[in-house]
Amino acid sequence: MDQPTAQPFADPVVQPIVWEGNQLRLLDQRILPSQTKYISLRTSRDVAAAITDLVVRGAPAIGISAAYGCVLGWREVSSAAPVGDARQQMQSVFALMRQARPTAVNLMWAVDRMQNVLAQLPAEDDAQAIEKAMETVALEIHADDRKACWDMAQYGVEELSQGSRVLTHCNTGALATGGIGTALGVITTAAAKNKLNAVYAGETRPWLQGSRLTMWELQKNGVAGTLVCDNAVAHLARTEGIDWLIVGADRVAANGDVANKIGTLSAALHVKRFGGKVMVVVPTSTIDLDTPNGDAIAIEQRDQQEVCKIAGTAMAPAGTKAWNPVFDITPAEWIDCIVTERGVARPDFTANLKLLCETPNS
Amino acid sequence: MDQPTAQPFADPVVQPIVWEGNQLRLLDQRILPSQTKYISLRTSRDVAAAITDLVVRGAPAIGISAAYGCVLGWREVSSAAPVGDARQQMQSVFALMRQARPTAVNLMWAVDRMQNVLAQLPAEDDAQAIEKAMETVALEIHADDRKACWDMAQYGVEELSQGSRVLTHCNTGALATGGIGTALGVITTAAAKNKLNAVYAGETRPWLQGSRLTMWELQKNGVAGTLVCDNAVAHLARTEGIDWLIVGADRVAANGDVANKIGTLSAALHVKRFGGKVMVVVPTSTIDLDTPNGDAIAIEQRDQQEVCKIAGTAMAPAGTKAWNPVFDITPAEWIDCIVTERGVARPDFTANLKLLCETPNS
Repeated sequence: MDQPTAQPFADPVVQPIVWEGNQLRLLDQRILPSQTKYISLRTSRDVAAAITDLVVRGAPAIGISAAYGCVLGWREVSSAAPVGDARQQMQSVFALMRQARPTAVNLMWAVDRMQNVLAQLPAEDDAQAIEKAMETVALEIHADDRKACWDMAQYGVEELSQGSRVLTHCNTGALATGGIGTALGVITTAAAKNKLNAVYAGETRPWLQGSRLTMWELQKNGVAGTLVCDNAVAHLARTEGIDWLIVGADRVAANGDVANKIGTLSAALHVKRFGGKVMVVVPTSTIDLDTPNGDAIAIEQRDQQEVCKIAGTAMAPAGTKAWNPVFDITPAEWIDCIVTERGVARPDFTANLKLLCETPNS
Repeated sequence: MDQPTAQPFADPVVQPIVWEGNQLRLLDQRILPSQTKYISLRTSRDVAAAITDLVVRGAPAIGISAAYGCVLGWREVSSAAPVGDARQQMQSVFALMRQARPTAVNLMWAVDRMQNVLAQLPAEDDAQAIEKAMETVALEIHADDRKACWDMAQYGVEELSQGSRVLTHCNTGALATGGIGTALGVITTAAAKNKLNAVYAGETRPWLQGSRLTMWELQKNGVAGTLVCDNAVAHLARTEGIDWLIVGADRVAANGDVANKIGTLSAALHVKRFGGKVMVVVPTSTIDLDTPNGDAIAIEQRDQQEVCKIAGTAMAPAGTKAWNPVFDITPAEWIDCIVTERGVARPDFTANLKLLCETPNS
């Protein structure tokens, strides 16, 4: 694999999650791109509220933030009570974190890990030793995600031919992870290696993560990207050509069906129809072998007002009914490869995803 | 054909163009749906400015407005000069009208017709007789379009099975024509006959004609429609099912390739992919037998800011580059029928469109 040696672990250009020992600073994604402002969080309650209020989004980023929130929580309870009592009180902190965004799988996973650490520490450990141990695990969760992003990017870039024209959807960059991102990490890494002839981003209605976040991240990374309305992707693929659609996923089923932001299915069908390929980039933690296929994934419908209003302005007449699914399912038959931090799965996905998930990390 | 007998020519519920003899009143489409306001135009210059400024849009609606503008123009020139001089001065009025929206084919056609009428009137006619003759032709242009809409709707409805689930794109209703519309006329007529189980409208980025105009017209017609983001159409067709995509067109080529609002190709591919059909509804004047196929149609790129800003608010960071084609081409192979005021063309379109265009009006 063609890995630059000087900075094998360069920091992402954008760092939305900054741990400063006594506080967590989160880049406020609600006001991007018009304002770049960090919010300082000093208590576990602050962190939970920030997760609920979408200051931070993206499954890995939410999990990392919650882990740091648990460290802040330990400080609070241990400063006001003896260690034994504090350990008991931490159960409420863990519950608070889990409730911040109840459907986020990575959040549950990160809080579980923090809870297990505490449970396994010897009863004789003092407050400071416990704090140190918990902080170490939170930093590890963050560092592991950064490494996973890096590894995914290396594997993904290998799939791309020199001069590829790529399209992405939604935001899957540093803003959504603890590192350079999943799908967007592949794109910015490939661009840095001068492998790409064109980078397009779908605006991603209704939330416009493509316009607001992905275009901003591309700029920060010095990548010349072009924004397109989602409904122009068919015409783009037909007339200008797209070699690869590169997207992340919220969940990958055991058979390779992919649940991702609404519009992914649309883009995948068009890119495939006009001769391109589809790459899904996810950490193995996003692959759920217990979900047999896409039909087993419930698709949440969100508030109709997200479609009817933009930036607070009504775009449709009062009383308009809208259909607003947050995800769609792209069947495995339209996916060419699923890139993870452990390597690349290709069809037959049922066999190959299982193999990949059961391989221990190198 | 199943035609209601009581009101074979009921007025459309929405009337954006109202001629009052001494003034033209246009519904200001720029501020819909938040405000319903008519603008009164008393001079040809007012009408030209309203066309340029997009107070009125839709090819037939622009042509009708321009014809009335010519009548107002005759009043102006004939009230200040003898008839012979006034006839000369009218050439500037016709030029003013043509320049209001230079790419609008129907505008040229309507102004040509008004110019021909004037040229053919006897030299001895007085100003009032000329005014009467020109007004009669303008009213005819309006009435003919109203009848064409009506006829298209009857033919289109015949194509739909009882209980059809339909999707439309952009706005093709009363707001765009002199009658009940083209594609949307089919839908509101079918709904009035209780033939539809579901009506969906794509929001139609970047201008949001679906949200702003089509949802408003559906409401005015008492049709329960549902708005969807354009990128959700694939998921909609795959999971809920769409029997027909029903759209208008800006131009139909001799082989049946269709130029229409960006997003039409995307919707057509998805509806076809998941088992539905595609109906294009246009007056025969939109069929251009001199354009051999879609490749011969130049696709205008519009201002990038239309994608980057919504309702004046920046959605993408400053300096964002956007690809913003105003139309796309849907190849004839994905179109099931083209409905006109003279009947329905089916493949082979090259033969059948020619036949239809060469049939005299009944």
